[in-house]
Amino acid sequence: MRVFQESLKIGELATGQDLTIPIFKLKALHASGPSVYIQANVHGAEVQGNAVIYQLMKRLEQYNICGDITLVPLANPLGINQKSGEFTLGRFDPITGVNWNREYLAHDIDLVDWYQNNKTLNDTDLIHAYKKCLLESCQSRLQSEWGITTGHQQAVMLQSMAHQADIVLDLHTGPKSCKHLYCPQYDVQAASYFSIPYTLLIPNDFGGAMDESIFCPWWQLSEHMKSTGREMDVPVSAFTLELGSQENIHLEDALADAMGILAYLSHRGVIAEKVEPVDMPRYACHLTDYKKYHSPLGGMVEYLAKVGEPLAAKEPLANILRIDLYGTDKALTQLSLNQDCVPILHFASASVYQGTELYKVMTNVFEI
Amino acid sequence: MRVFQESLKIGELATGQDLTIPIFKLKALHASGPSVYIQANVHGAEVQGNAVIYQLMKRLEQYNICGDITLVPLANPLGINQKSGEFTLGRFDPITGVNWNREYLAHDIDLVDWYQNNKTLNDTDLIHAYKKCLLESCQSRLQSEWGITTGHQQAVMLQSMAHQADIVLDLHTGPKSCKHLYCPQYDVQAASYFSIPYTLLIPNDFGGAMDESIFCPWWQLSEHMKSTGREMDVPVSAFTLELGSQENIHLEDALADAMGILAYLSHRGVIAEKVEPVDMPRYACHLTDYKKYHSPLGGMVEYLAKVGEPLAAKEPLANILRIDLYGTDKALTQLSLNQDCVPILHFASASVYQGTELYKVMTNVFEI
Amino acid sequence: MRVFQESLKIGELATGQDLTIPIFKLKALHASGPSVYIQANVHGAEVQGNAVIYQLMKRLEQYNICGDITLVPLANPLGINQKSGEFTLGRFDPITGVNWNREYLAHDIDLVDWYQNNKTLNDTDLIHAYKKCLLESCQSRLQSEWGITTGHQQAVMLQSMAHQADIVLDLHTGPKSCKHLYCPQYDVQAASYFSIPYTLLIPNDFGGAMDESIFCPWWQLSEHMKSTGREMDVPVSAFTLELGSQENIHLEDALADAMGILAYLSHRGVIAEKVEPVDMPRYACHLTDYKKYHSPLGGMVEYLAKVGEPLAAKEPLANILRIDLYGTDKALTQLSLNQDCVPILHFASASVYQGTELYKVMTNVFEI
Amino acid sequence: MRVFQESLKIGELATGQDLTIPIFKLKALHASGPSVYIQANVHGAEVQGNAVIYQLMKRLEQYNICGDITLVPLANPLGINQKSGEFTLGRFDPITGVNWNREYLAHDIDLVDWYQNNKTLNDTDLIHAYKKCLLESCQSRLQSEWGITTGHQQAVMLQSMAHQADIVLDLHTGPKSCKHLYCPQYDVQAASYFSIPYTLLIPNDFGGAMDESIFCPWWQLSEHMKSTGREMDVPVSAFTLELGSQENIHLEDALADAMGILAYLSHRGVIAEKVEPVDMPRYACHLTDYKKYHSPLGGMVEYLAKVGEPLAAKEPLANILRIDLYGTDKALTQLSLNQDCVPILHFASASVYQGTELYKVMTNVFEI
Repeated sequence: MRVFQESLKIGELATGQDLTIPIFKLKALHASGPSVYIQANVHGAEVQGNAVIYQLMKRLEQYNICGDITLVPLANPLGINQKSGEFTLGRFDPITGVNWNREYLAHDIDLVDWYQNNKTLNDTDLIHAYKKCLLESCQSRLQSEWGITTGHQQAVMLQSMAHQADIVLDLHTGPKSCKHLYCPQYDVQAASYFSIPYTLLIPNDFGGAMDESIFCPWWQLSEHMKSTGREMDVPVSAFTLELGSQENIHLEDALADAMGILAYLSHRGVIAEKVEPVDMPRYACHLTDYKKYHSPLGGMVEYLAKVGEPLAAKEPLANILRIDLYGTDKALTQLSLNQDCVPILHFASASVYQGTELYKVMTNVFEI
Repeated sequence: MRVFQESLKIGELATGQDLTIPIFKLKALHASGPSVYIQANVHGAEVQGNAVIYQLMKRLEQYNICGDITLVPLANPLGINQKSGEFTLGRFDPITGVNWNREYLAHDIDLVDWYQNNKTLNDTDLIHAYKKCLLESCQSRLQSEWGITTGHQQAVMLQSMAHQADIVLDLHTGPKSCKHLYCPQYDVQAASYFSIPYTLLIPNDFGGAMDESIFCPWWQLSEHMKSTGREMDVPVSAFTLELGSQENIHLEDALADAMGILAYLSHRGVIAEKVEPVDMPRYACHLTDYKKYHSPLGGMVEYLAKVGEPLAAKEPLANILRIDLYGTDKALTQLSLNQDCVPILHFASASVYQGTELYKVMTNVFEI
Repeated sequence: MRVFQESLKIGELATGQDLTIPIFKLKALHASGPSVYIQANVHGAEVQGNAVIYQLMKRLEQYNICGDITLVPLANPLGINQKSGEFTLGRFDPITGVNWNREYLAHDIDLVDWYQNNKTLNDTDLIHAYKKCLLESCQSRLQSEWGITTGHQQAVMLQSMAHQADIVLDLHTGPKSCKHLYCPQYDVQAASYFSIPYTLLIPNDFGGAMDESIFCPWWQLSEHMKSTGREMDVPVSAFTLELGSQENIHLEDALADAMGILAYLSHRGVIAEKVEPVDMPRYACHLTDYKKYHSPLGGMVEYLAKVGEPLAAKEPLANILRIDLYGTDKALTQLSLNQDCVPILHFASASVYQGTELYKVMTNVFEI
Repeated sequence: MRVFQESLKIGELATGQDLTIPIFKLKALHASGPSVYIQANVHGAEVQGNAVIYQLMKRLEQYNICGDITLVPLANPLGINQKSGEFTLGRFDPITGVNWNREYLAHDIDLVDWYQNNKTLNDTDLIHAYKKCLLESCQSRLQSEWGITTGHQQAVMLQSMAHQADIVLDLHTGPKSCKHLYCPQYDVQAASYFSIPYTLLIPNDFGGAMDESIFCPWWQLSEHMKSTGREMDVPVSAFTLELGSQENIHLEDALADAMGILAYLSHRGVIAEKVEPVDMPRYACHLTDYKKYHSPLGGMVEYLAKVGEPLAAKEPLANILRIDLYGTDKALTQLSLNQDCVPILHFASASVYQGTELYKVMTNVFEI
């Protein structure tokens, strides 16, 4: 294995200084397995992925890698460096409000037409041609005559790298969160390798996120081919790993997640050695069963339900303290839900407006 | 005319205090004309609409109104009161980043099915039934079991009021901007009444804004009916008026815009008296010809092109000063465009990242 | 005991709406003991004091109070309601940057002159006269011809209430913090009543905080009198209680702190019943031995030292991860201090600029 | 003249990237005149000083310089690059709220003691020794065992450079402002060279700003020496130039200010050629007569008084629109002052809280 470090310029600041991202490329001596792209910290406060990449690189030094691995920590320098008060305001572009993870390119390819023109190709050549088409679409977007927004430029440059890999991992965290995985429905077996107890099974809809930007075009191609009677597995795997809470660096925990990723890479043949996944129960639900619960009133919040622990219907979710209403029955309101769920994450602050997204919970959970 | 003032609660703050909006209802003694809904200041820094409503109410006291008029200034109290430094951070929800004017409800009505069930109604009854359907859809959204976000609740409550009117005006401003109007293509003749020189003709696509949330469902119904062979004009009019620059209150200029609105209301029969529109040239382009130009580099910006004044291709648009590159040919870069345009607005700050939206310009402009 | 609730207007928002604070007044039937003023949440994210006031009021219903108690939760509505991203930006005025707890009035009284004019008074009358002088000074500030800043007005209105009490408690929290108490040196014995393990002994210097604004003028008077040969104890007690971490509501923990406050109030004769303080070791250091440690480099932070637990010199304080330097000996830097200390609080975010205040630690700690 | 460009590292970001400032050093071939230090953009939105430095460097290429000139544009990269919404949040550290121009070092030199030890030196050697003492004090601060805050490090590094010059210019702007100059009282004649109509005469008090950090230690030394019977002029000149409004780059106007600076440098012998100051009336007042007027109510603001134009007592200053109070006599409140003044600057936003600093005005203005 050889390691190369590069620096990618993805923008310029108002002072004129370059916005750059460090890139580590681990090159297999004899690449036989799939290639991998891993990025972290696209949301500025979600820093733990950097620690996971650190642990992963340290461990990979001890393995024989059979596929090239590109690692992109600190993927959003503007978002990471943007403090507002004591916290990192890293979820959206401070100028436009656009979520940094909704900036990836929706390719505007006419699939019917494209496949009509390429259907005589065998699978390998077809994949090669389609990948080329995706990359050209990214390049074309980056070179628009009218320019391109700061966040879109960063995203499409990252996406261009990711399109070149067979496996794409985007490392995120929730606000106050247990670990969970966004996994496309066609790839559910992959969820049994990561050290992650909860999985969201997502459909073939592009909403702007990195993982979707990678698998959706291929999934759509695969489905279109199927409709014409030709079977081809989706040739890429792309996941978003939510590695606990934001504003947290924990090296030991990062090692656990690095080992989960290694287990998956081992399974996929990216490393020659066998790394077994952790033996743990794993659960899932469909994305339509992943519910956002918004606070029905404003006030101070005591979060009662623990993330990652099943909560029965009617059990206490949170208390809302309204000290201004002391002496009435509204001074303390206990909130609960009408159905069983697993709370996955809750809001980061202890006070909310009416309507703030208080908890996200999985319902209709099943073991996988 | 009778005037009623109400206060609408649209949320609760973390302290528990109500978020409220003042509402003025001008009731016609004998309502024969269309009803009107006018709101202002949905983006927190875009305050001039409040001054226009002030001037409008003062003038309306001197007219005979034939249709009920609802006026909602200060429509976004959270956005208006959210300062960040010396300016108002009022364009998006400070927690989520969502643009306050992209929060309106996309009705999820199966038009084919709905029309099939209602096609025996005459136009009047059909309109009544469809309006009821839109209002119920709003109510249903507001009463979701899982709650509703802060911004969506505010928007849908405003939208519910607007759906009850025949004419809807949403008063905004640009950052540094000349006056311009967002006008649906079917209603282009309305543009000749307002005191606004530039008009954007917008298609039947819902993007989340107030005006679209009002006219799109009706336009879609009208087009569906047309496809079945029945003609019905779109029975509502909805416009976004961009009244110059944000962070500006100018009472005299507000009077000019109030008179333009009165000219339109006079034309529509909302007031009994004749108010003539200002005799001025008016220009338009299609929304697809409204271009965003993003800064190709980071730096300090001298805005050279004046908003509202035609700019020939290759004429200077802006200078980008890069004092850090003094002594090279990149210390001062003059930007220009490859085609004729009318700059409509430019960015509010004098320094930009690479990719910041520098100017929005109309191309392929024609007189209307 | 009778309970009265009032609402104090302390400002107006840009929308024109009043900024108000809820005030609870618990009136003794026969006031014989000292009077008390307790406020909470002057820093917007430091919400736990509201829960402590809630628990305190619930408990006080069961006691006989001998002194009037004024409780002011949610004391800074602007700060509490100002979100920036998912957190509360509540430490400073968003327009000016001024810390909300540095806005209290430094009385500009010529002590030598004042005492010369009042020295014939006995202690009771002297105290009465000086209190009147302090209150008039506040009123005069509030009525300045040139107006008064938003934050200063709020602070001086709170201060006016606090000046009327004999005991003043200002409930705060740290960012990520153990419980600690700011206590003036003359009042050190009070520290043995609260449920707080660490105490900072502060000198007679006014820096703008509430507690100082209350005790400094009296301490200065007392010291001046002493210099003239007349002894008078400082007749007021004022403390800042730091009740753990910000962005946290925990009702059970709030009860523990409420009981500590009751123990102090019991000792002072504010309640008739005996409430014993918790038997626990308590430690202190002088304010000059309370050290801020600033990060010597920028990067991602793993906080290793636990707040509230003694840390020997050279033991690990924190790791700074610099993933961009992977492969060098600077990828992971372990920070430590040169002397024994007790870390009291650390920064809230897991990434820092060079120079960010990483930890605050007590040195030269002794048991009290 | 030779020009050198350097880059000064003044910090590190959370991503690990260096915070750097570009520095241009113009070296005289035969330095006979005083040396000069000019910085710009310490407040992030106050960008026009960069344009002035640009014009100054272009002009200086045509002159013979007799003293070394150090030019430091873009002096606060963190502040310049920190956007919040469409504007630059550049007035204070986003984490701490501390004003970037209140971070300079107050030297803690025991003047009586120092002078006692150095009084046998002649003026030249005394100046040399004192300058060395100031620089060592800066170095000592930068090397504190406990670290140093982000803003303080940046400021003290800039201050170290400025202490080495005889003339120091700090280029700022106001929010919406006319041009004005902060000038120490001992240096009033300098005000007649710059192209600036209004001057504030400031006393010998250190408040944390750059100009004060430079002249106060020398002024104090000079006054102490005078008290011992030895006369020595303050050997440094330091000014803050407020060059109009923030968020504005205007190259032609920058040239006018560059010519004013050249006139002063010519007068001082920094350039060999004669540059005459602009013939214009210039006015001044003492800092105690520079008044901040805070809004007596919250609402929407129409700024009526023009900056830089005298305003008689009782003349209209601003209108506060309270559309929520339409129909009452409080819907529109006209504000005025009780004394004659010259409005120098006003708040940047068109809506205010009660207590927002609305205008700063000079009173008791006299011609100089």
